[in-house]
Amino acid sequence: MSQDIRPGEEQLPFDPADRTEAGLSFIGAIRSPWSKGDCPRNIARARESGKGARIELRPGYGRGLLGLSVGQPVIAVYWMDRARRDLIVQSPGHADGPRGTFALRSPVRPNSLAMAVVVITSLDAGAGVIGIDAIDVFDGTPLVDLKPWLSTVDIPPGWTPEA
Amino acid sequence: MSQDIRPGEEQLPFDPADRTEAGLSFIGAIRSPWSKGDCPRNIARARESGKGARIELRPGYGRGLLGLSVGQPVIAVYWMDRARRDLIVQSPGHADGPRGTFALRSPVRPNSLAMAVVVITSLDAGAGVIGIDAIDVFDGTPLVDLKPWLSTVDIPPGWTPEA
Repeated sequence: MSQDIRPGEEQLPFDPADRTEAGLSFIGAIRSPWSKGDCPRNIARARESGKGARIELRPGYGRGLLGLSVGQPVIAVYWMDRARRDLIVQSPGHADGPRGTFALRSPVRPNSLAMAVVVITSLDAGAGVIGIDAIDVFDGTPLVDLKPWLSTVDIPPGWTPEA
Repeated sequence: MSQDIRPGEEQLPFDPADRTEAGLSFIGAIRSPWSKGDCPRNIARARESGKGARIELRPGYGRGLLGLSVGQPVIAVYWMDRARRDLIVQSPGHADGPRGTFALRSPVRPNSLAMAVVVITSLDAGAGVIGIDAIDVFDGTPLVDLKPWLSTVDIPPGWTPEA
Protein backbone atom coordinates (compact mmCIF):
# COMPACT_ATOMS: atom_id res chain seq x y z
CA MET A 1 0.00 0.00 0.00
CA SER A 2 1.40 3.39 -1.02
CA GLN A 3 2.16 5.84 1.74
CA ASP A 4 2.43 8.75 -0.69
CA ILE A 5 1.02 12.14 0.23
CA ARG A 6 -0.54 14.50 -2.34
CA PRO A 7 -0.21 18.29 -2.07
CA GLY A 8 -2.39 19.61 0.77
CA GLU A 9 -2.78 16.22 2.42
CA GLU A 10 -1.91 15.65 6.07
CA GLN A 11 -0.90 12.49 7.88
CA LEU A 12 -1.67 11.61 11.49
CA PRO A 13 1.44 11.37 13.69
CA PHE A 14 0.56 7.68 14.21
CA ASP A 15 -1.20 4.91 12.30
CA PRO A 16 -4.59 3.98 13.84
CA ALA A 17 -3.98 0.45 12.53
CA ASP A 18 -1.34 0.11 15.25
CA ARG A 19 -3.75 1.11 18.05
CA THR A 20 -6.47 -1.53 18.20
CA GLU A 21 -8.94 -1.05 21.07
CA ALA A 22 -11.88 -3.19 19.88
CA GLY A 23 -12.08 -6.15 17.55
CA LEU A 24 -14.35 -6.73 14.56
CA SER A 25 -15.43 -10.19 13.45
CA PHE A 26 -16.56 -10.51 9.84
CA ILE A 27 -20.13 -11.83 9.50
CA GLY A 28 -19.98 -12.42 5.76
CA ALA A 29 -18.91 -10.94 2.45
CA ILE A 30 -20.37 -8.72 -0.24
CA ARG A 31 -20.35 -10.36 -3.67
CA SER A 32 -20.32 -7.67 -6.34
CA PRO A 33 -19.51 -7.42 -10.06
CA TRP A 34 -16.72 -4.93 -9.27
CA SER A 35 -12.97 -5.14 -8.95
CA LYS A 36 -10.16 -2.58 -8.92
CA GLY A 37 -10.52 -0.40 -12.03
CA ASP A 38 -14.24 -0.75 -12.72
CA CYS A 39 -15.88 -0.04 -9.35
CA PRO A 40 -18.54 2.72 -9.45
CA ARG A 41 -17.59 5.86 -7.54
CA ASN A 42 -20.75 5.85 -5.45
CA ILE A 43 -23.97 3.92 -4.88
CA ALA A 44 -25.95 6.15 -7.30
CA ARG A 45 -23.56 5.21 -10.11
CA ALA A 46 -23.73 1.56 -9.09
CA ARG A 47 -27.54 1.73 -9.32
CA GLU A 48 -27.32 3.28 -12.78
CA SER A 49 -25.31 0.25 -13.93
CA GLY A 50 -28.38 -1.92 -13.36
CA LYS A 51 -26.17 -4.57 -11.77
CA GLY A 52 -27.32 -6.09 -8.50
CA ALA A 53 -25.16 -7.73 -5.89
CA ARG A 54 -25.55 -10.08 -2.96
CA ILE A 55 -24.50 -10.58 0.62
CA GLU A 56 -23.32 -14.02 1.71
CA LEU A 57 -23.44 -14.50 5.46
CA ARG A 58 -21.15 -16.93 7.25
CA PRO A 59 -22.62 -20.06 8.86
CA GLY A 60 -24.73 -19.29 11.92
CA TYR A 61 -25.74 -15.77 10.91
CA GLY A 62 -28.74 -16.54 8.63
CA ARG A 63 -31.10 -16.68 11.63
CA GLY A 64 -30.37 -13.01 12.18
CA LEU A 65 -32.44 -12.19 9.07
CA LEU A 66 -35.72 -13.16 10.77
CA GLY A 67 -38.13 -10.24 10.33
CA LEU A 68 -36.49 -8.68 7.26
CA SER A 69 -38.35 -8.81 3.95
CA VAL A 70 -37.85 -8.23 0.24
CA GLY A 71 -38.23 -4.57 -0.72
CA GLN A 72 -37.01 -3.34 2.65
CA PRO A 73 -34.05 -0.92 2.83
CA VAL A 74 -31.15 -2.00 5.03
CA ILE A 75 -27.81 -0.51 5.98
CA ALA A 76 -24.86 -2.73 5.06
CA VAL A 77 -21.78 -1.89 7.13
CA TYR A 78 -18.53 -3.16 5.69
CA TRP A 79 -14.79 -3.04 6.23
CA MET A 80 -12.66 -1.60 3.45
CA ASP A 81 -9.75 -3.92 4.06
CA ARG A 82 -7.42 -2.39 1.47
CA ALA A 83 -7.61 1.24 2.60
CA ARG A 84 -4.87 3.14 4.41
CA ARG A 85 -5.83 4.71 7.73
CA ASP A 86 -3.32 7.47 8.43
CA LEU A 87 -4.57 10.47 6.39
CA ILE A 88 -6.54 13.14 8.28
CA VAL A 89 -6.70 15.73 5.46
CA GLN A 90 -7.13 14.52 1.88
CA SER A 91 -7.08 16.01 -1.62
CA PRO A 92 -9.52 13.87 -3.60
CA GLY A 93 -9.66 14.45 -7.35
CA HIS A 94 -13.34 15.47 -7.26
CA ALA A 95 -12.95 18.16 -4.55
CA ASP A 96 -11.73 21.70 -5.13
CA GLY A 97 -9.11 21.57 -2.38
CA PRO A 98 -8.03 19.64 0.72
CA ARG A 99 -10.85 18.32 2.91
CA GLY A 100 -10.83 16.73 6.33
CA THR A 101 -11.33 12.97 6.39
CA PHE A 102 -14.53 13.40 8.45
CA ALA A 103 -15.98 15.67 5.72
CA LEU A 104 -15.45 12.93 3.10
CA ARG A 105 -16.89 9.47 2.41
CA SER A 106 -13.46 8.33 1.19
CA PRO A 107 -12.40 4.76 2.10
CA VAL A 108 -9.27 6.34 3.61
CA ARG A 109 -10.12 7.01 7.29
CA PRO A 110 -8.91 6.04 10.79
CA ASN A 111 -11.29 3.08 10.87
CA SER A 112 -12.01 1.56 7.45
CA LEU A 113 -15.77 1.43 8.00
CA ALA A 114 -18.29 2.28 5.30
CA MET A 115 -22.02 1.87 4.93
CA ALA A 116 -24.46 1.64 2.09
CA VAL A 117 -28.25 1.96 2.15
CA VAL A 118 -29.46 -0.83 -0.14
CA VAL A 119 -32.77 -2.52 -0.92
CA ILE A 120 -33.30 -6.25 -0.35
CA THR A 121 -34.23 -7.95 -3.65
CA SER A 122 -34.20 -11.57 -2.44
CA LEU A 123 -33.83 -13.33 0.86
CA ASP A 124 -32.76 -16.89 1.67
CA ALA A 125 -32.35 -17.07 5.42
CA GLY A 126 -31.51 -20.78 5.31
CA ALA A 127 -28.54 -20.20 3.03
CA GLY A 128 -27.77 -16.82 4.59
CA VAL A 129 -27.89 -15.07 1.21
CA ILE A 130 -29.50 -11.67 0.54
CA GLY A 131 -29.86 -10.10 -2.89
CA ILE A 132 -29.38 -6.32 -2.92
CA ASP A 133 -30.20 -3.77 -5.61
CA ALA A 134 -26.69 -2.34 -5.99
CA ILE A 135 -23.37 -1.77 -4.21
CA ASP A 136 -20.24 0.25 -4.91
CA VAL A 137 -17.57 -2.00 -3.39
CA PHE A 138 -15.10 -4.62 -4.60
CA ASP A 139 -16.21 -8.23 -4.75
CA GLY A 140 -15.31 -9.99 -1.50
CA THR A 141 -15.47 -6.93 0.77
CA PRO A 142 -15.98 -8.14 4.36
CA LEU A 143 -19.34 -7.35 5.98
CA VAL A 144 -19.49 -6.41 9.66
CA ASP A 145 -23.15 -5.50 10.23
CA LEU A 146 -26.60 -5.30 8.70
CA LYS A 147 -29.29 -3.02 10.16
CA PRO A 148 -32.82 -2.05 9.13
CA TRP A 149 -32.92 1.47 7.65
CA LEU A 150 -35.51 3.54 9.54
CA SER A 151 -36.78 6.87 8.24
CA THR A 152 -37.53 7.98 11.81
CA VAL A 153 -33.88 7.75 12.87
CA ASP A 154 -31.80 7.77 9.68
CA ILE A 155 -32.99 11.08 8.20
CA PRO A 156 -31.85 14.33 9.84
CA PRO A 157 -34.51 16.37 11.69
CA GLY A 158 -36.31 18.83 9.45
CA TRP A 159 -34.94 17.39 6.21
CA THR A 160 -37.25 17.62 3.19
CA PRO A 161 -36.58 16.56 -0.40
CA GLU A 162 -35.49 19.32 -2.78
CA ALA A 163 -38.37 20.60 -4.86
CA MET B 1 -22.28 -9.18 31.61
CA SER B 2 -25.28 -11.48 31.85
CA GLN B 3 -25.42 -14.39 29.43
CA ASP B 4 -29.12 -15.00 30.08
CA ILE B 5 -31.42 -15.98 27.25
CA ARG B 6 -35.08 -14.89 27.12
CA PRO B 7 -37.80 -17.12 25.62
CA GLY B 8 -37.46 -17.27 21.83
CA GLU B 9 -33.91 -15.93 21.81
CA GLU B 10 -31.09 -17.79 20.07
CA GLN B 11 -27.36 -17.73 20.70
CA LEU B 12 -24.62 -18.14 18.12
CA PRO B 13 -22.55 -21.32 18.60
CA PHE B 14 -19.54 -19.02 19.18
CA ASP B 15 -18.87 -15.52 20.53
CA PRO B 16 -17.82 -13.06 17.79
CA ALA B 17 -15.78 -11.26 20.47
CA ASP B 18 -13.38 -14.24 20.34
CA ARG B 19 -12.88 -13.98 16.56
CA THR B 20 -11.22 -10.64 15.84
CA GLU B 21 -10.30 -10.11 12.18
CA ALA B 22 -9.88 -6.32 12.06
CA GLY B 23 -9.06 -3.76 14.72
CA LEU B 24 -10.83 -0.53 15.62
CA SER B 25 -9.04 2.45 17.10
CA PHE B 26 -11.18 4.93 19.02
CA ILE B 27 -11.02 8.48 17.61
CA GLY B 28 -12.82 10.15 20.49
CA ALA B 29 -15.77 9.91 22.82
CA ILE B 30 -19.39 11.01 22.88
CA ARG B 31 -20.19 13.17 25.89
CA SER B 32 -23.91 12.91 26.66
CA PRO B 33 -26.23 13.65 29.60
CA TRP B 34 -27.16 9.95 29.77
CA SER B 35 -26.15 7.03 31.93
CA LYS B 36 -27.63 3.60 32.61
CA GLY B 37 -31.26 4.04 33.64
CA ASP B 38 -32.07 7.36 31.98
CA CYS B 39 -30.85 6.92 28.39
CA PRO B 40 -33.52 7.67 25.74
CA ARG B 41 -34.60 4.62 23.75
CA ASN B 42 -33.89 6.22 20.40
CA ILE B 43 -32.62 9.42 18.82
CA ALA B 44 -36.15 10.83 18.37
CA ARG B 45 -36.73 10.58 22.14
CA ALA B 46 -33.31 12.10 22.77
CA ARG B 47 -34.25 15.04 20.56
CA GLU B 48 -37.53 15.52 22.44
CA SER B 49 -35.53 15.91 25.66
CA GLY B 50 -34.05 19.12 24.27
CA LYS B 51 -30.64 18.08 25.58
CA GLY B 52 -27.70 18.39 23.24
CA ALA B 53 -24.43 16.50 23.43
CA ARG B 54 -20.90 16.78 22.11
CA ILE B 55 -18.16 14.79 20.51
CA GLU B 56 -14.63 15.13 21.87
CA LEU B 57 -12.00 13.95 19.40
CA ARG B 58 -8.64 12.68 20.55
CA PRO B 59 -5.49 14.70 19.82
CA GLY B 60 -4.59 14.74 16.12
CA TYR B 61 -8.10 14.18 14.79
CA GLY B 62 -9.41 17.78 14.84
CA ARG B 63 -7.89 18.48 11.40
CA GLY B 64 -10.27 15.90 9.99
CA LEU B 65 -13.17 18.33 10.54
CA LEU B 66 -11.97 20.67 7.76
CA GLY B 67 -14.92 21.26 5.43
CA LEU B 68 -17.69 20.46 7.90
CA SER B 69 -19.95 23.27 9.10
CA VAL B 70 -22.57 24.10 11.72
CA GLY B 71 -26.05 22.97 10.66
CA GLN B 72 -24.73 20.06 8.60
CA PRO B 73 -25.96 16.52 9.33
CA VAL B 74 -23.28 13.93 10.02
CA ILE B 75 -23.26 10.24 10.81
CA ALA B 76 -21.58 9.41 14.12
CA VAL B 77 -20.42 5.80 14.24
CA TYR B 78 -19.73 4.48 17.71
CA TRP B 79 -18.83 1.32 19.56
CA MET B 80 -21.28 0.07 22.20
CA ASP B 81 -18.60 -1.27 24.48
CA ARG B 82 -20.93 -2.78 27.06
CA ALA B 83 -23.08 -4.88 24.72
CA ARG B 84 -22.97 -8.66 24.39
CA ARG B 85 -22.31 -10.01 20.90
CA ASP B 86 -23.58 -13.60 20.85
CA LEU B 87 -27.37 -13.29 20.30
CA ILE B 88 -28.64 -13.85 16.74
CA VAL B 89 -32.38 -13.87 17.54
CA GLN B 90 -33.70 -11.52 20.22
CA SER B 91 -36.96 -10.87 22.04
CA PRO B 92 -36.95 -7.14 22.77
CA GLY B 93 -39.70 -5.81 25.02
CA HIS B 94 -41.09 -3.52 22.31
CA ALA B 95 -41.45 -6.22 19.61
CA ASP B 96 -44.33 -8.68 19.35
CA GLY B 97 -42.08 -11.73 19.11
CA PRO B 98 -38.52 -12.87 18.41
CA ARG B 99 -36.67 -10.93 15.71
CA GLY B 100 -33.35 -11.52 14.00
CA THR B 101 -30.51 -9.30 15.18
CA PHE B 102 -30.15 -7.86 11.65
CA ALA B 103 -33.82 -6.77 11.72
CA LEU B 104 -33.20 -4.79 14.93
CA ARG B 105 -31.21 -1.70 15.92
CA SER B 106 -30.45 -3.29 19.31
CA PRO B 107 -26.96 -2.72 20.75
CA VAL B 108 -26.70 -6.51 20.98
CA ARG B 109 -25.11 -7.66 17.68
CA PRO B 110 -22.03 -9.53 16.41
CA ASN B 111 -20.12 -6.26 16.09
CA SER B 112 -21.15 -3.59 18.60
CA LEU B 113 -21.39 -0.83 15.99
CA ALA B 114 -24.13 1.78 15.95
CA MET B 115 -24.69 5.00 14.10
CA ALA B 116 -26.69 8.15 14.65
CA VAL B 117 -27.57 10.90 12.18
CA VAL B 118 -27.02 14.12 14.12
CA VAL B 119 -26.79 17.81 13.32
CA ILE B 120 -23.64 19.84 14.10
CA THR B 121 -24.52 22.71 16.45
CA SER B 122 -20.99 24.00 17.10
CA LEU B 123 -17.55 23.25 15.76
CA ASP B 124 -14.11 23.87 17.30
CA ALA B 125 -11.61 22.13 15.03
CA GLY B 126 -8.67 23.35 17.11
CA ALA B 127 -9.97 21.68 20.25
CA GLY B 128 -11.51 18.79 18.30
CA VAL B 129 -14.94 19.39 19.85
CA ILE B 130 -18.25 19.22 17.96
CA GLY B 131 -21.60 20.09 19.47
CA ILE B 132 -24.47 17.88 18.26
CA ASP B 133 -28.22 18.33 18.58
CA ALA B 134 -28.92 15.05 20.42
CA ILE B 135 -27.70 11.51 20.99
CA ASP B 136 -29.13 8.36 22.57
CA VAL B 137 -26.00 6.81 24.07
CA PHE B 138 -24.28 6.67 27.44
CA ASP B 139 -21.77 9.36 28.30
CA GLY B 140 -18.28 8.24 27.33
CA THR B 141 -19.29 5.94 24.45
CA PRO B 142 -16.24 5.50 22.17
CA LEU B 143 -16.46 7.06 18.70
CA VAL B 144 -14.98 5.24 15.71
CA ASP B 145 -15.99 7.39 12.73
CA LEU B 146 -17.69 10.57 11.60
CA LYS B 147 -19.03 10.96 8.06
CA PRO B 148 -21.03 13.61 6.22
CA TRP B 149 -24.68 12.54 5.75
CA LEU B 150 -25.58 12.77 2.06
CA SER B 151 -29.17 12.62 0.85
CA THR B 152 -27.98 11.22 -2.49
CA VAL B 153 -26.52 8.10 -0.91
CA ASP B 154 -28.11 7.76 2.54
CA ILE B 155 -31.77 7.64 1.50
CA PRO B 156 -33.09 4.51 -0.22
CA PRO B 157 -34.00 4.81 -3.92
CA GLY B 158 -37.59 5.89 -4.48
CA TRP B 159 -38.21 6.84 -0.87
CA THR B 160 -40.62 9.72 -0.28
CA PRO B 161 -41.87 11.18 3.01
CA GLU B 162 -45.26 9.96 4.23
CA ALA B 163 -48.02 12.41 3.38
